[in-house]
Amino acid sequence: MIYTVALIPGDGIGTEVVAAVKPLLDDTAERAGFEIDYTEFDWGSNRYLQEGSMMPDDGVDQLRKFDAILLGAVGHPDIPDHVTLRGLMLPIRKELNQQICKRPTVLREGVQSPLRGYEGGDIDFVVYRENTEGEYADVGGREHRGFEHEVAVQSAVFTRKGTETVVREAFEAAAERDGKLTNVTKSNAQAYGMVFWDEVVEEVGQEYPEVTVERLLVDAAAMDFVRRPEAFDVVVASNLFGDILTDLGAIISGSMGLAPSANLCVEGDAPSMFEPVHGSAPDIQGQGIANPLATVLSGAMLFDDLGEVAAGDRLREVVDEQLADASAPRTPDIGGDASTDDVVMDLRARL
Amino acid sequence: MIYTVALIPGDGIGTEVVAAVKPLLDDTAERAGFEIDYTEFDWGSNRYLQEGSMMPDDGVDQLRKFDAILLGAVGHPDIPDHVTLRGLMLPIRKELNQQICKRPTVLREGVQSPLRGYEGGDIDFVVYRENTEGEYADVGGREHRGFEHEVAVQSAVFTRKGTETVVREAFEAAAERDGKLTNVTKSNAQAYGMVFWDEVVEEVGQEYPEVTVERLLVDAAAMDFVRRPEAFDVVVASNLFGDILTDLGAIISGSMGLAPSANLCVEGDAPSMFEPVHGSAPDIQGQGIANPLATVLSGAMLFDDLGEVAAGDRLREVVDEQLADASAPRTPDIGGDASTDDVVMDLRARL
Ligand SMILES: CC(C)[C@H](C(=O)O)[C@@H](O)C(=O)O
Ligand SMILES: CC(C)[C@H](C(=O)O)[C@@H](O)C(=O)O
Repeated sequence: MIYTVALIPGDGIGTEVVAAVKPLLDDTAERAGFEIDYTEFDWGSNRYLQEGSMMPDDGVDQLRKFDAILLGAVGHPDIPDHVTLRGLMLPIRKELNQQICKRPTVLREGVQSPLRGYEGGDIDFVVYRENTEGEYADVGGREHRGFEHEVAVQSAVFTRKGTETVVREAFEAAAERDGKLTNVTKSNAQAYGMVFWDEVVEEVGQEYPEVTVERLLVDAAAMDFVRRPEAFDVVVASNLFGDILTDLGAIISGSMGLAPSANLCVEGDAPSMFEPVHGSAPDIQGQGIANPLATVLSGAMLFDDLGEVAAGDRLREVVDEQLADASAPRTPDIGGDASTDDVVMDLRARL
Repeated sequence: MIYTVALIPGDGIGTEVVAAVKPLLDDTAERAGFEIDYTEFDWGSNRYLQEGSMMPDDGVDQLRKFDAILLGAVGHPDIPDHVTLRGLMLPIRKELNQQICKRPTVLREGVQSPLRGYEGGDIDFVVYRENTEGEYADVGGREHRGFEHEVAVQSAVFTRKGTETVVREAFEAAAERDGKLTNVTKSNAQAYGMVFWDEVVEEVGQEYPEVTVERLLVDAAAMDFVRRPEAFDVVVASNLFGDILTDLGAIISGSMGLAPSANLCVEGDAPSMFEPVHGSAPDIQGQGIANPLATVLSGAMLFDDLGEVAAGDRLREVVDEQLADASAPRTPDIGGDASTDDVVMDLRARL
C-alpha cells in the first residue's frame, strides 16, 4: 500500500522537526508493510517575504488529492501572526472541512510535570476542539463614528452542524474511553453562542446514556487543569476555549514539545492535517535542539487516520520507551541536552 | 469620617465569608480612625426562588449613593448561572460603569503553590481586566433556518473608550511598578476585535515610553502562567481573557480562597464593587470552612479605594503574618482544618 502525504514544513523549527522525523516515519511504515509517497511544499513565511503570499491561490486545492497532510509550524518574527496564520494554517483547516481538532494530553512516564505531585500516568485525557468556526469565524468589523467613538465587533458563529459534529465525535470517544465527557463553555456570560452549544451537547447526549456529562465554565476548567487534571477524560470545547485549554494541557503534561494534534475532516473526502501544537519558536530556531516528539506523535495520529493503527501504536511505544529511559537522549525543553537528530536516531534504533 | 458601604452577601459561602469578615473590617477601621455604615441587601438566589428576580428593578440605582459595595458571591445549584449572574453581578458591573476589574495575584509566604518549585514571593503580578463589554457584550442571536441549519451568533464589542480606559489604567500601574506590561490578545485568529485592542495598546503606550510592552497570545499566556509566572508584573486583557487568566492566577497562587477582586468605576461617581474571585461554592456551603481571606483582601482593596490605604495595608499585613505563621489557623483549601471564624478571630487578635 502506498499513501500520499503532503508535507508542509513551514517556518522555523517546523522545518527542522519535519526533516528529522521523516526517516523515522518511513522506517516505521516499512516495518508495517506500507509506503509513504511525500510531496513537499515550500509554503510559509519565506515565500510570503519573497512573493507576498504564504501559499499559491490554489494552495488548498492542491492539497485535496492527498491522503493526509503533515505540517511543521507557521509563524515568523517579522510578520504579524494574523498574516501568517490566516494565510496558511487557518484556511486549510476551514476549506478542507477539518471540523475537529483532536489533542491527546498525556503526562508520560519519565517526564516531569510542572505540577507538584503529578507523575507519569496521572494525566491522560483528550480534548476535542471545534476547529473551523466559533470564535475564529472571520466575521466582524469596525465602525468609525469619529475616532473617539470607534467600535470594533468580532462575532463568533456557531452552526448546528459544526457544533454537532465535534460534540458527537467527543461523545463517541467518551463512550470508548471512561464514559465521562467534560463540556466546557461560558454560558453564564455568553447567552447566545454558549447556551446554544450547551443545548447541542444535551441533545446529542441523549443518544449516549452511558456517558456522564460534566459542565464546566472555561475559567473553572483552566483552574481544574492545574488543580485536578487527573479528573479529565474527554473534554469538548469551542475553537477558542479548545485552543487555550490545549496549550495549558501541553504544559501540564511536561512540554509543548510533546503535544501532537490532528485536524480531522470527518465528512467528505478531504485529507486531515497533523501538526505539533507548538509554533515555529524563532528563539531556538537553527540550533537543532527542537523537540521532535510532538511531530513524531502527530505522525502516529496520521498513521491511525490512514488506518495503519499498528504503526501508530509502534511509534507511541518507542516514544514511551525512550522517555521512560533516563539514559536516553532528550532535548533541553524536557531537561536534557540532546539534539533533535539524537532523539530521532535513538527512536529509529528502538523500532 | 463615616463611609457608607452596601453589603450584598449573596449566595452560599458568600453569606458566610461576608458575615465573618465584617467585624474585622470594623476593628480595622476603628483603629485607623474611621467608621463604616453598612446597609445590607438580601439580594440573590433565595430572593429569585421566592420572587422571581435576583434584585429589585431599581436595584442598581439603590446602590449608586454608596461609597462602595462589598459582594460575597452569587450562584445557586438549582438556577442556571446565566440567570443568577445576569440578574445581579453583571448588571451592577455594567450599569455602575465599573469598567476595570483589578485582580492582584500573589503567592504569599507560607502558601503552597501547585506549581513545582514556586515559593512565597515568586509570584506577584496584577491583572487589569476590561469589565463591562468585549466578549461579555449582550449581543447576539439565533437564526432558525430550519433545525438543521440553525446558527447562533455571539458578538464581542470593543469600544475605544472601554478599551482605552482599562489599557491606560494598566499602563499607569506598570509605570508605578516594574515598568513591564503584558498585553494578552488573540490577534492571530480574531482580526477585528483583538487587532483593534492591540492598536489601542500601541497608541496609549506612546504616552508611557518608560513601560515595556510584551504581546502574548492568550493560549501562550495561559501556558506561561504555569511555566514562568514570575515573569509577569502587570497584565492587561479583555473581559473573557481576564476572566480565564485570573482564575488560573488564583490557583497558581495557592487557592481560589485567597484571591480578591475590585470592580472599579474610574469615571463618574458610581461606587466600585469588591468581591472575592471565588463563587458561592455549594459543595462546602453551611460547613463554616470557607476561606475568608479572599474577602478580607477584597476589603483591603475597598479601603484603598476609599482613600484609607493605611487600613488596607494593615489588613494585608495581618493576612501575610497569619499565612507565614505555620501554627496559625487555616482553612482546608490551604491545607488546614480551621473554620472561617477561627481564621477571622486570629486576624482580629493580630490587628
Ligand atoms: C497559531 C494559532 C492560529 C493556532 C490556533 O489558535 O488555532 C494555534 O494556537 C493552535 O492551537 O493550533
Ligand atoms: C461568575 C462569572 C460571570 C464571573 C465572570 O466571568 O466575570 C466570574 O467568573 C468572575 O470572574 O468574576
